[in-house]
Amino acid sequence: MIIQLKSSLTAQQKESILEKIAAIGYQSSEVRTQFAHYLVCVGKKEFDIREIGLMEGIRDIHRVSDPYKLVSKKWRVEDTELDLGDGVVIGRNNLTIIAGPCSIEGEAQIRSTISHLQQHGVRLMRGGVFKPRTSPYAFRGAGIEGLKAYAEHCRAAGIKVVTEVMQVSQVEAMLEYVDIFQVGARNAQNFNLLDALGKIDKAVMLKRGISGTVEELLQAAEYVFANGNEKIILCERGIRTFETIYRNTLDLNAVPILKEKSHLPVIVDPSHGIGLRNHVESMALAAVMAGADGVIMEVHECPERALSDGQQTLHYSEAATLYEKLHKTWELRNSFTKGL
Amino acid sequence: MIIQLKSSLTAQQKESILEKIAAIGYQSSEVRTQFAHYLVCVGKKEFDIREIGLMEGIRDIHRVSDPYKLVSKKWRVEDTELDLGDGVVIGRNNLTIIAGPCSIEGEAQIRSTISHLQQHGVRLMRGGVFKPRTSPYAFRGAGIEGLKAYAEHCRAAGIKVVTEVMQVSQVEAMLEYVDIFQVGARNAQNFNLLDALGKIDKAVMLKRGISGTVEELLQAAEYVFANGNEKIILCERGIRTFETIYRNTLDLNAVPILKEKSHLPVIVDPSHGIGLRNHVESMALAAVMAGADGVIMEVHECPERALSDGQQTLHYSEAATLYEKLHKTWELRNSFTKGL
Amino acid sequence: MIIQLKSSLTAQQKESILEKIAAIGYQSSEVRTQFAHYLVCVGKKEFDIREIGLMEGIRDIHRVSDPYKLVSKKWRVEDTELDLGDGVVIGRNNLTIIAGPCSIEGEAQIRSTISHLQQHGVRLMRGGVFKPRTSPYAFRGAGIEGLKAYAEHCRAAGIKVVTEVMQVSQVEAMLEYVDIFQVGARNAQNFNLLDALGKIDKAVMLKRGISGTVEELLQAAEYVFANGNEKIILCERGIRTFETIYRNTLDLNAVPILKEKSHLPVIVDPSHGIGLRNHVESMALAAVMAGADGVIMEVHECPERALSDGQQTLHYSEAATLYEKLHKTWELRNSFTKGL
Amino acid sequence: MIIQLKSSLTAQQKESILEKIAAIGYQSSEVRTQFAHYLVCVGKKEFDIREIGLMEGIRDIHRVSDPYKLVSKKWRVEDTELDLGDGVVIGRNNLTIIAGPCSIEGEAQIRSTISHLQQHGVRLMRGGVFKPRTSPYAFRGAGIEGLKAYAEHCRAAGIKVVTEVMQVSQVEAMLEYVDIFQVGARNAQNFNLLDALGKIDKAVMLKRGISGTVEELLQAAEYVFANGNEKIILCERGIRTFETIYRNTLDLNAVPILKEKSHLPVIVDPSHGIGLRNHVESMALAAVMAGADGVIMEVHECPERALSDGQQTLHYSEAATLYEKLHKTWELRNSFTKGL
Repeated sequence: MIIQLKSSLTAQQKESILEKIAAIGYQSSEVRTQFAHYLVCVGKKEFDIREIGLMEGIRDIHRVSDPYKLVSKKWRVEDTELDLGDGVVIGRNNLTIIAGPCSIEGEAQIRSTISHLQQHGVRLMRGGVFKPRTSPYAFRGAGIEGLKAYAEHCRAAGIKVVTEVMQVSQVEAMLEYVDIFQVGARNAQNFNLLDALGKIDKAVMLKRGISGTVEELLQAAEYVFANGNEKIILCERGIRTFETIYRNTLDLNAVPILKEKSHLPVIVDPSHGIGLRNHVESMALAAVMAGADGVIMEVHECPERALSDGQQTLHYSEAATLYEKLHKTWELRNSFTKGL
Repeated sequence: MIIQLKSSLTAQQKESILEKIAAIGYQSSEVRTQFAHYLVCVGKKEFDIREIGLMEGIRDIHRVSDPYKLVSKKWRVEDTELDLGDGVVIGRNNLTIIAGPCSIEGEAQIRSTISHLQQHGVRLMRGGVFKPRTSPYAFRGAGIEGLKAYAEHCRAAGIKVVTEVMQVSQVEAMLEYVDIFQVGARNAQNFNLLDALGKIDKAVMLKRGISGTVEELLQAAEYVFANGNEKIILCERGIRTFETIYRNTLDLNAVPILKEKSHLPVIVDPSHGIGLRNHVESMALAAVMAGADGVIMEVHECPERALSDGQQTLHYSEAATLYEKLHKTWELRNSFTKGL
Repeated sequence: MIIQLKSSLTAQQKESILEKIAAIGYQSSEVRTQFAHYLVCVGKKEFDIREIGLMEGIRDIHRVSDPYKLVSKKWRVEDTELDLGDGVVIGRNNLTIIAGPCSIEGEAQIRSTISHLQQHGVRLMRGGVFKPRTSPYAFRGAGIEGLKAYAEHCRAAGIKVVTEVMQVSQVEAMLEYVDIFQVGARNAQNFNLLDALGKIDKAVMLKRGISGTVEELLQAAEYVFANGNEKIILCERGIRTFETIYRNTLDLNAVPILKEKSHLPVIVDPSHGIGLRNHVESMALAAVMAGADGVIMEVHECPERALSDGQQTLHYSEAATLYEKLHKTWELRNSFTKGL
Repeated sequence: MIIQLKSSLTAQQKESILEKIAAIGYQSSEVRTQFAHYLVCVGKKEFDIREIGLMEGIRDIHRVSDPYKLVSKKWRVEDTELDLGDGVVIGRNNLTIIAGPCSIEGEAQIRSTISHLQQHGVRLMRGGVFKPRTSPYAFRGAGIEGLKAYAEHCRAAGIKVVTEVMQVSQVEAMLEYVDIFQVGARNAQNFNLLDALGKIDKAVMLKRGISGTVEELLQAAEYVFANGNEKIILCERGIRTFETIYRNTLDLNAVPILKEKSHLPVIVDPSHGIGLRNHVESMALAAVMAGADGVIMEVHECPERALSDGQQTLHYSEAATLYEKLHKTWELRNSFTKGL
């Protein structure tokens, strides 16, 4: 059960509500986000929801039978729209394209990428500065200095910065420079990191775990929301299966299911999802057709020389063609939802 | 290595070729299909392919490094087109839609389905008469008598019959009535059944195994081809993973990979692939956008009363809308391959 | 619900029972095995089981809530013991060891294997004559002639023949020569083959499917039992997972679960289960400790020269050591169940 | 390549070695642990290892072709033995039993558990104070205060504290109270946490990821070692597969493989590995037989009232019986390795 409280709520009204909830045997968690003030109540007894709904100080009340609550569409039936400023909006009626290299490698690469994105009207750039690597001896990213240069150039160009955060202690240092904090598949259940990202006022993009279920992804989002941050984006990036012919198995089934279960935007990562450059286009277009709000993909001036993930990274020219096809596919899908 | 032989091949020429192959240490299998005559040669030694290619009686010769040979695109670079007669063609420039109930239930249902298909220009009807069921106590299909009624009505309406065959002994009895023999996921590595279907001149649609790899699907096709039947269709229908929120995990990654590796047409089954009626549309459209040559889907006048698979079966009206969207999606995708 | 009928059952008694079952809204299947006569009844209504239980002609009646019925331990609480004759008994208080080559290769190999088995008191020999192979161009087994030689030598030595059957049409031809018909992982849901094996009076060993669930394995066994054959052995042989460092992932969890759910004997195949010769011993011993009734393993005079599966096949000397350790492990486990 | 340096190494000798490594085109990482001083060198060129091995200041040099280096058995061929003090030793010739509740719930529970462990000679107690929970609204553990009480009682009883650490910032606060830091399955690739645990001088037990490969587990251990901590224990705790009849699929194949690939001790967690109380015993005994150095298991005075994981937790009396059986199984296995 989610109780949305009025902004005019008095201390006495709150006390009465909490007493009532306790009386019916429910446990409640208070959630205060950028936008609103909630009580999330968990319990099993049957009771007449109007008993609470009619109390003073309550704006709205909803039963939510899902294991996740605040991210559920059972409560918020309209799709969430995230406004990142400067006209960059994610979700609902907006197609989101995020593109850029796997890893930030240096200023020349940053400038080259931004120039490519600007030329094609792409407003969000991805680029890793902290890289999770299987081996401790591998390249682990350009770090906070790399991020500063990356952010400076993006700001100047009106482009938003999307980058991965790997641990709690990085959040504060990165905060000024990042527009969307990305949580990687290996940290999908790093609950302390999710807690920390719930306490900031920046968008957070959550990648599904390597073998994470749809429900676990939604529960990860619930962590962020329950800590106070409503700006959440979900990302399907492929799961681990028995099939070894591609890097991961992109699970597009998850797209319509996530859109049905949650009001949050859903982005698909076809680069990691199939892991093979020449098939990224097919999977990106299929993702949009399956109902995704956008895609995140790897592009590089010269993928063959990229420090990581070159085999799944598009050349600028390939990416340019794909941007155009994505827009056309988006238009066709929208024409369907408006009726034939 | 695949050697395509001339139709004018003499016994003496053949003997010389076989001697030459043996001399270089290769093993050869002779394959004679509806359309041509081949030698498939397997071995590891390096040699100059022209030594054989220039011999009398040989039309063409190709190295194929894949573990499968005759179904590989390394040898036959153009997509295969299957002509089923009466203007029904599968593959290459044709969008294939196969629709119908999970199980044939009776004449009224057959007539109703055909009427629905005719109204929307769908030329292929699916319908099971032999049903693989987990429990021995469940309904196991209308059998050969059901097939006869089904085929009779389809023939009269110019509609092709697509139905599952479960064992070798059924092939002969079904032959007269079936246009496309479907091999189910549970029989994906029933090699004796594949051998038998390689000896007939009817199209065969091979479903990927429940946890079958892409390579195993192509090897199953190789069994059919190597026994003499080139009329093969591949079908992605979802794999078994850890995710339980949907029936199967539709693996659309497999679509561009299969199209890259093989010249055979690729059909997708979104009904089994997600197993939830309200998401069949999304996955069907995504499949076409990913590069599929068509879809096979379950429709029923009243899915709630269907004897099997009702929860993933579309109502006629839902299907009608989807047919139209499939055609529009197909057109868009084709416009892409012709350049923007 | 399972109704065990008296052997003295009259036609009139049977009719009365069937009428009663129909009256309470249940569907019944009549099952007549080598040993007994049953009615398996499936339905959902609540009723007083004594209403039926007290009728004439009924020996016993049991509710079974599992999806499988006759193979469930809810009905038959004591472990099944299979007597193959000549003092070879499987299940309950007997440790079963089945050993032999992957494929029968010739008479010399048969004689050598039998001599090895006799030396160590092993009474069951495995050996494939029909081999399921991924590629149509691979060696597919010595066939029925190979089986005849294999059976002849085994009979002379008092050793039982365990071999794989791949299709219905082979059952009759093999019947005379086989003591245990093995159904391979790829045929785990070949329901027609299971039906056919239910109609003979020979033991059947069912391998779990490549990605088969425990419940699917028990349902496969239900097929055989429901067709009239109670002589069934279950076999865990490893499942397909994301892990590629071994051939399959041997799922020993399945052993105590199968022993809890079913009265049938459970055999483990460590050779396929891990696929690496030097670890077969560890997994064989672990299987016995987990509660298995025995193991089936690959041995060969010279694994390096075996026609198939050499990398997971034990040398005679390695096998000899393992037989001894298996017996000691079996004794220890038995001492536990008798209390410390 | 691993170069073990002499403790007498001079700055000048080190410089010469580093110059030599750079000259042959290898990258080197310097690793200084509690016990020794190494250079781990990664590169692809062929060269005569003696060129380096004979230089001043080098104690030993080894080629290691595995992707992980310091944890590989290719370099350190003898099993590692971890001495935790007070006669508690893990690995090599020692059977390790770790038992205790899923979560620390209070002082009474701590005292009760310790009394049970002492009675049966168990020297290591598990107990979570920081709990990773799928839902943000669930009980998240007794925290650092719970840990202090837990450690105080353990110290008094000569029992070692094994507990999970979830994030970098907890390491320092926990350091004084913990004997073995456990890294949970969800943090198996939390590389920052692994880095931090490499910088302390306490034992670290790494659980395999939910769908982690054996190689990923070894790479996680490499992170800890490469940061300076050699005190590492590996733990198999079940993987996520398609099978839903048990909580996880305990992968005992991993045990002999890990023992072959690495010199580190391997512990198995049968409680999470099967997740069903009545089968924990079978899997614990099987684990020892498969070659494990010990087990970690959940026990509770009253599992039905436990705050978490009650369904897989043993009663004291069940645990007591199991300890005895584990010792007998361990003795039998040891008798095997000493020859029959």
